[in-house]
Parts: sequence; structure tokens; C-alpha cells
Amino acid sequence: MAIDITLVGYGAAFCTTCSFIPQVWQIIQSRNTESISLLMYCIFVFGVFLWCVYGVVVKDLPLIIANLVTLILAAIILAMKLRDTISKAKNSSLRQI
Amino acid sequence: MAIDITLVGYGAAFCTTCSFIPQVWQIIQSRNTESISLLMYCIFVFGVFLWCVYGVVVKDLPLIIANLVTLILAAIILAMKLRDTISKAKNSSLRQI
Repeated sequence: MAIDITLVGYGAAFCTTCSFIPQVWQIIQSRNTESISLLMYCIFVFGVFLWCVYGVVVKDLPLIIANLVTLILAAIILAMKLRDTISKAKNSSLRQI
Repeated sequence: MAIDITLVGYGAAFCTTCSFIPQVWQIIQSRNTESISLLMYCIFVFGVFLWCVYGVVVKDLPLIIANLVTLILAAIILAMKLRDTISKAKNSSLRQI
């Protein structure tokens, strides 16, 4: 029973894209981003943006859609991590006054 | 000045692969995986494994290499998250005795 390799590709794209949903959900629930790496999501969001540009230029719709969804999810995580990092910096500077 | 789109592809692969290094480093330094989603890394590691299979079948070496590195890094994060989850479960069951 030979599995159509395209299905493996779509399965891979689906998993690596949707895997960010539980991370977004966990951060929204816990309001905790402490162990999330800010640097990781800065580089990752930029990389996924490049994948979107690449997909547009080579006219690969599945690549564009998968990376656009990942870009949105990863950008949400980045935004929540940035918000926490900024508010922590503000609080620590207030304590020093 | 037209940028060679292949370079954009390699740049995207480099960023989305190497972005996991700071996350691994942060967990090793902080020993804190609390806000990391176990479900995310279970699905993500499986998805990246599928990308490796896909790359082998379609004989795309850059795809294999990029996803193999990502698989190793993401699997390290998953292993550290699993370790913390199991030890937390043990501690809470000990407290109930």
C-alpha cells in the first residue's frame, strides 16, 4: 500500500502549522511567557515571512497558505512575549526609582 | 537589483531552523519549561519528521538537512518539557500520599 507522498507533504505542513495553536492557547490561558524565547520567535517570524515571500514568487499556493497561518500564530506568540518583556522592564525600572 | 529567489528560500530555511537554538539555550539556562506547550512540540516534532520523510522520498537534500536539524532541536525541547512534566506529576502524587 504505497502512500501518496503528496499526502505526507500536506500532513507535514498541517502539523507544523497547526502545532502553534496549542502554544497560543496555553499562553492566553496561563498569561505566562517566561520560558518562551523572545529571540527564537523574532528569528522564526522573520524566517516564516521569508517563506511567504518565496511562496509568492514561485507561485506555490500551499506553501503560501501554510506559512501565512504559521506567520499569524507565531506573530501572536511574539507579540505576547514582547508585551510581557516590556512590562517586566517597566516594572523593574519603576522599582529602581 | 533582483535578489535570487533561491537565496530567499535558503534564508527562510536557515532562520526557521536556527531559531530553535536560542529556545534550547534558554531552557538549558533557566531550567524552566512552564510556558512551553507540550502539545505544540509533540505535533511539531511529528510534523518535522514527516517533512524529513517527504524530503527523502522526493530526494530534496536542503529540505532533509533543514528539517533534520529542526527535528533534533525541537526533540531536545520536547524531551526537556516531558522531563519537567513527568517530575511535576511525580511530585504532586508524592504530596497526596
